[in-house]
Amino acid sequence: MNKIYFSDLNNYIDKEIELSGFVENIRNIKWVQFLVLRDSTDKVQVTIEKSLDENKEMVEIVNSLPLESVVKVTGTLKANENVRLRGIEFIPTKLEVVSESALELPINIHDKDAQLIDQRLDYRWLDLRNEYNFNIFKIQSTLVQYMREFLYKNDFTEIHTPKMIGTASESGSEVFEVKYFDRKAYLAQSPQFYKQMAISSGYDKVFEVAPVFRAENSNTSRHATEFTSFDLEFAYINSYEDVMDFEEELLVYALKKVNEKYGELVKRIYGKEIVVPKAKFPRIKLNDLYNVLEERYNYKVSEEEKNDLTTEAEKLSYKYAMEEFDSEFIFVTDFPKDKRAFYHMRKEDIPQGYDLIYRGVEITTGAQREHRYEKLISQAKEKGLDEDVKFYLEFFKYGCPPHGGFAIGIDRFTMLTLGLTIKEAMFIFRGPNRLNP
Amino acid sequence: MNKIYFSDLNNYIDKEIELSGFVENIRNIKWVQFLVLRDSTDKVQVTIEKSLDENKEMVEIVNSLPLESVVKVTGTLKANENVRLRGIEFIPTKLEVVSESALELPINIHDKDAQLIDQRLDYRWLDLRNEYNFNIFKIQSTLVQYMREFLYKNDFTEIHTPKMIGTASESGSEVFEVKYFDRKAYLAQSPQFYKQMAISSGYDKVFEVAPVFRAENSNTSRHATEFTSFDLEFAYINSYEDVMDFEEELLVYALKKVNEKYGELVKRIYGKEIVVPKAKFPRIKLNDLYNVLEERYNYKVSEEEKNDLTTEAEKLSYKYAMEEFDSEFIFVTDFPKDKRAFYHMRKEDIPQGYDLIYRGVEITTGAQREHRYEKLISQAKEKGLDEDVKFYLEFFKYGCPPHGGFAIGIDRFTMLTLGLTIKEAMFIFRGPNRLNP
Repeated sequence: MNKIYFSDLNNYIDKEIELSGFVENIRNIKWVQFLVLRDSTDKVQVTIEKSLDENKEMVEIVNSLPLESVVKVTGTLKANENVRLRGIEFIPTKLEVVSESALELPINIHDKDAQLIDQRLDYRWLDLRNEYNFNIFKIQSTLVQYMREFLYKNDFTEIHTPKMIGTASESGSEVFEVKYFDRKAYLAQSPQFYKQMAISSGYDKVFEVAPVFRAENSNTSRHATEFTSFDLEFAYINSYEDVMDFEEELLVYALKKVNEKYGELVKRIYGKEIVVPKAKFPRIKLNDLYNVLEERYNYKVSEEEKNDLTTEAEKLSYKYAMEEFDSEFIFVTDFPKDKRAFYHMRKEDIPQGYDLIYRGVEITTGAQREHRYEKLISQAKEKGLDEDVKFYLEFFKYGCPPHGGFAIGIDRFTMLTLGLTIKEAMFIFRGPNRLNP
Repeated sequence: MNKIYFSDLNNYIDKEIELSGFVENIRNIKWVQFLVLRDSTDKVQVTIEKSLDENKEMVEIVNSLPLESVVKVTGTLKANENVRLRGIEFIPTKLEVVSESALELPINIHDKDAQLIDQRLDYRWLDLRNEYNFNIFKIQSTLVQYMREFLYKNDFTEIHTPKMIGTASESGSEVFEVKYFDRKAYLAQSPQFYKQMAISSGYDKVFEVAPVFRAENSNTSRHATEFTSFDLEFAYINSYEDVMDFEEELLVYALKKVNEKYGELVKRIYGKEIVVPKAKFPRIKLNDLYNVLEERYNYKVSEEEKNDLTTEAEKLSYKYAMEEFDSEFIFVTDFPKDKRAFYHMRKEDIPQGYDLIYRGVEITTGAQREHRYEKLISQAKEKGLDEDVKFYLEFFKYGCPPHGGFAIGIDRFTMLTLGLTIKEAMFIFRGPNRLNP
């Protein structure tokens, strides 16, 4: 593997080298052919003088070369201040077509808005060649890299828990059913039960980055039937405040790293600023939030609606957090117990958990979990859960440390950081009507 | 989160601190109670003088305290050379039961061989409290951490590809069917098609660590219906030799790091040496291997069997590699084309790929892929594949760089490194008869 990446080309001026890449553009004018080659790191111009005898073969190839073909060129890299693209050009002595593209592309890859998103997704592998789409996943990869790095620094252990499970699991959202030999299995909606199992096994700090599955038949701008969840859980906490503190540290760490590497690019391509939080994220009780929103923005909801965050309240909480605390994040706490999962610990009947709102959208539900067997059983019963969670309740029968945790959907986080829709923010989107490519 | 981890206790001698952990053992003798507490990092002795008045309450708690309960103790850590466990003991002034275990454990967690593996797996969260089982996943986490680190250093991008797919996919092994609203989906047997899609999109180097699903109704010591695959793919290779070279570098890097961190522990607990390869892995053609095995070990198989690696040939190839090259790894190349996937590139009809055998078991199939659209179509047709791979073939229609890659099952790799069965090497095992916990 000795490909020279285009980002490194400045080290090869006046050297005879071999370059490979996609043909992004061809300008075929009277005396010269200009090709723009692209690899994952940058672009470079290839210049072919048509009048030279030794270029005859190349000129003919280029005359009928479809854009987006992959070529290999041998020749010399030259500095040339007249070349607009990076002030360098490659003068080839040989050009080989490694992979010829079809003549016409089914979508316009240079203007991502020339087609509707669903048309583009049908040709996702071409759609991703657009710089805007391409870089989303370079950035997402870096984001996840540094989120993990923060956990490694804090001695977390990575676990890999099963996605096929025996019972239909915890949450309200629907589950996908799998034909498992002569019985049924279900796809895990989250690794929640298993990361708590790890805590009961004595792994004090665990995380998992893996797909989760939600059989929700809804087409919104932020839901998918399958997405990647960054999940963690840790033991020996004193309260859910520890969980919020830790999530805050994690996000600040990762955003700082992503900003260092991609801040400029994000500004240029997505017109967004990656804001590295400087102060503590504000924390507010759900009820207080509704009071504030009414006072400040005259936002009124029914008593019933006040039991949970409305989409509009999420949006306004962002406005409030920015105006009052200059923060893109805000923790909302003290949800009523009937709106929270049975495994959230309660104190005087108030669930010890939170939602984290980022740029007006919920990105996390976190909590201290109930680790006391008897209390957990009674909370499960109260929610009408029984057989389906029986195996899970057993995890707490033989000693389990106090613990808490949270999950961040990395696709949604990417979406909000770069200002995308969920269909753009997923490498390959899955929704009720989409199972391809 | 201010828990003091037991591995750090030497910094707290003579300090008044608070400790939390599982109660691993209690010795209740005439004048004294000795407790051994355990957390994820180490153990510590807690000593309670029974005669002291102020200890009365604690003594009573401990008298009826079930093992494996979680307690919190406040007191002072003392150096005491008479204490066999680390030469330190904790003298508590207060003891609080945070989580009381049931009196009897359903399995013996101190002797992992006291029950059959399937009984133990029913209580996996207790089974994992055994040091032997516990450390497997600390080691596996570190292994994967450094495999990823190597890829980040080499500018790989992490992708997250869908596990629910629209067609029944590539390989011979059976697929699981999912009820996807009013249609069917299938669980991905590998991210193969999608990591190649990423290459076609222009991501020159990609990887994914994620679950894969195999609906094989077989109960062997090395198969599971769901496991974690460490998959990668990279572009602009010259041949599959580049792929082998890279896998070799990756494994040497990761094994070196794991050995530094866990080499001693692996020797002590698993009786195994982590061998960091010093020389290039030997490479041998399948046919030559059978000749060597016959010559050296009188191992004879039918002509039919020579078309693939038999389980016994895998084992003997290890013996041969050790004797001749002092290598635990050996690459086997030049399989016949009817034994390899249609997407392996061929040269003079020979698939440009390999199996990697580690300690006598195949851990990887790698290859250069066929990136040329027309050739790929004809190879798919030859294998009788048509509609199911149609969406995949399209990835190569509009230009695609030459590329190759491989996958390592991290559970199997862990199994071989530590000398385990697959049921032990998976955090939570899934087989045809097991969907719990």
